Amino acid sequence: MSKCAHLITIADLTLSQVENLFRVATSYTHQGYSAVTDVLRGKSVPLMFFESSTRTRISFEMAVGRHGGTPLNFRTRSSSTQKGESDLDSVRTVAAMDPAIIVLRHGSTGLIHEFAKESKVPLINAGNGAEEHPTQALIDIFTLSNSVDNFGPKSKILFIGDIEHSRVARSDISLLSRLGVQIYISGPPKLVHPSWLPSSAIIVSSPDEIISEVDAVVALRIQMERHQSTLLDSKDQYFSEFGLTVERAKNMRAEAVVLHPGPFNRGIEIASEVADGPRSRILSQVRNGLYIRMALIEFLIEGSQ
Amino acid sequence: MSKCAHLITIADLTLSQVENLFRVATSYTHQGYSAVTDVLRGKSVPLMFFESSTRTRISFEMAVGRHGGTPLNFRTRSSSTQKGESDLDSVRTVAAMDPAIIVLRHGSTGLIHEFAKESKVPLINAGNGAEEHPTQALIDIFTLSNSVDNFGPKSKILFIGDIEHSRVARSDISLLSRLGVQIYISGPPKLVHPSWLPSSAIIVSSPDEIISEVDAVVALRIQMERHQSTLLDSKDQYFSEFGLTVERAKNMRAEAVVLHPGPFNRGIEIASEVADGPRSRILSQVRNGLYIRMALIEFLIEGSQ
Amino acid sequence: MSKCAHLITIADLTLSQVENLFRVATSYTHQGYSAVTDVLRGKSVPLMFFESSTRTRISFEMAVGRHGGTPLNFRTRSSSTQKGESDLDSVRTVAAMDPAIIVLRHGSTGLIHEFAKESKVPLINAGNGAEEHPTQALIDIFTLSNSVDNFGPKSKILFIGDIEHSRVARSDISLLSRLGVQIYISGPPKLVHPSWLPSSAIIVSSPDEIISEVDAVVALRIQMERHQSTLLDSKDQYFSEFGLTVERAKNMRAEAVVLHPGPFNRGIEIASEVADGPRSRILSQVRNGLYIRMALIEFLIEGSQ
Repeated sequence: MSKCAHLITIADLTLSQVENLFRVATSYTHQGYSAVTDVLRGKSVPLMFFESSTRTRISFEMAVGRHGGTPLNFRTRSSSTQKGESDLDSVRTVAAMDPAIIVLRHGSTGLIHEFAKESKVPLINAGNGAEEHPTQALIDIFTLSNSVDNFGPKSKILFIGDIEHSRVARSDISLLSRLGVQIYISGPPKLVHPSWLPSSAIIVSSPDEIISEVDAVVALRIQMERHQSTLLDSKDQYFSEFGLTVERAKNMRAEAVVLHPGPFNRGIEIASEVADGPRSRILSQVRNGLYIRMALIEFLIEGSQ
Repeated sequence: MSKCAHLITIADLTLSQVENLFRVATSYTHQGYSAVTDVLRGKSVPLMFFESSTRTRISFEMAVGRHGGTPLNFRTRSSSTQKGESDLDSVRTVAAMDPAIIVLRHGSTGLIHEFAKESKVPLINAGNGAEEHPTQALIDIFTLSNSVDNFGPKSKILFIGDIEHSRVARSDISLLSRLGVQIYISGPPKLVHPSWLPSSAIIVSSPDEIISEVDAVVALRIQMERHQSTLLDSKDQYFSEFGLTVERAKNMRAEAVVLHPGPFNRGIEIASEVADGPRSRILSQVRNGLYIRMALIEFLIEGSQ
Repeated sequence: MSKCAHLITIADLTLSQVENLFRVATSYTHQGYSAVTDVLRGKSVPLMFFESSTRTRISFEMAVGRHGGTPLNFRTRSSSTQKGESDLDSVRTVAAMDPAIIVLRHGSTGLIHEFAKESKVPLINAGNGAEEHPTQALIDIFTLSNSVDNFGPKSKILFIGDIEHSRVARSDISLLSRLGVQIYISGPPKLVHPSWLPSSAIIVSSPDEIISEVDAVVALRIQMERHQSTLLDSKDQYFSEFGLTVERAKNMRAEAVVLHPGPFNRGIEIASEVADGPRSRILSQVRNGLYIRMALIEFLIEGSQ
């Protein structure tokens, strides 16, 4: 990463930097509620979310608070964007106020790349269009590394859902692929062939082909509002073909786990019994999110000093 | 209260715990602007308000800030609830992030009870459906105890308004009743017979029957938008029959006081001259709200350690 | 300023107080990212913005955070104003909670004057109707004093735009006029004759009459949504007659600078090349805003103790 460090794509981090972040995050998860620092004392971190969010925003807010800083919400609707200011000018304006870090989520892929070229403030990508969501990748792979024995090149992870439009899947698979993990893909046929898929990934026509062999399943959110009328016949059909039903979960290896980046739709991507059951790492992902983001903020602040 | 302490209903607190909270709050009100602690240093308190609020939310935000913590707003409309996540899953998600306390307001009675069973995070009920609003009861009774000489079993308090749908009245009356205070009720006939009313409460057909004898009147907010067309003929009629008019206030005992949990409607529940006059304790309730909530947060944090 | 200091209009400050604020702000701008104090430790500052805002709100939030305090957002739409409470009662309610300072923006001129009479909490006017925006005046004149050599009675500043409806212009010109600076005005004929304009100000029919002689141009935001159909024929015509085009900027003195209080409309009030070019002090205004507000908060807190 450059002198003014950004996290735009998961490829911005070397594997040794990732390892280091996981080590710090592990220490924070052990401290839990007591993990509090002064890294951001008196400093503000604007959360510029041009797309709405709950878990990601609150997770960053808490991470900023744990470091002694003040999270600031930039809300598109009550803002200058009503007055005709471009989103890039809004970001420039906020950046001119000497914030510690800017966390940016935007519906377009390009805005954060465009701003990163000129920004003297460290940027964290909290989701840019359909491209990347690198902090979620850190969270998911950190959670996998804590849940799968001997996690590494011999591990097998199955992603189920709309791979094509999932920035989470893209960031997750990018990092897993560098770690040499074997990736399997399953989903509606038109949604499983993104251009960025590594050649080593294996597309299976049904999760049932491989589910009994994998160490973990990552179920992805289906945006029913987008696909319902075109690619997906119905919620019931999706659940039956690709959902993590109780039956499918029973076919998994005894120690295999289930992840979902959330928010999840009960009875569509995952059965309630599975989401709330012993294989589920969904709430671990949420908790790890806080401590991974604390580790990342510390890393970027130190890198920019 | 259990090891992981919650405040769901006012009955969760023993009278000796209430007395203790009042003692701490008294000390804070004396310190006033200087009352600042490190009880929540580096910690976040999500305010999950599924119903909108001003005074309650800002009061909690200030109390969290005075303890050195970061208040976090969960806004329903810009959140994952848009994406189909259930409210209970939203609360579970936020709880997984190791917050210090969760403050929860929800339109349903049941959500907080359901979540309290599993929550390892202390919960504060900031209003659940038409059931309870226990921190408002602490505020109101604290304010009464500071305003009424020899406050206790010989005191007489008159509640005026829509008793049936008021969670504030229910929490207030529950606590007053345990303290042995004599309660009088007046309001539109169809709105004064809630099932939870203690048998010792006396329903009067007009406030004028008893107003000259009571130590305090608690006027309740009438939700005109709900009742106007059905139970209440008009704002003017309500004001004339049940409003705290200048004439009624004149008939009160010299030292008797007037409370309203707010937001109040001038000229409907209370005349402007009364709301802004010497009997009014409305702004005292607001100020006490901050210090009562500071005392409560401290109590719950200590109880959960 | 009185014992409980407010900043309602720029006239509330003596020139020596302004000079003092600039001295403190200069020190903060030099410290930059490291400018952090405990002036507001544990204290809350409600930002009651009844009109929406981005830069002003975030700038105040950051200033509060740098002083160790908690900025609180009062959002009109999710608030008690829905329940029929008047805006003045909302302000009174928040003021009863012992905040450090209240920052108030309101569409009416009068609310802040009305509340200032009774308020024991220091108030900062962040914009009241079409009257004043005194912190923006401090920012703009501070920026000018840092950008114009020998800034003072011999300096010449040209304001372009809708002078009549601009509270920024009114506050700016009020302070500049006390400093003896020569002011020029240009804009659509019906928008350049406000009653408050000092007699020393010179109205020119086109910016081209004087632009080659001035030390700085302050371009004002044109609210196209308000004027388009009536006073202004089109955006293109406005840009050609009054916009800071590349050609006009070329005619300026070599060292002359360009300000805009923002948010600015590219291609209407100012060409992109000028806004992003070497004459532009727009982002300096934004950055200075943080440090001016830090200085002001410190001044008001000290004044109220």
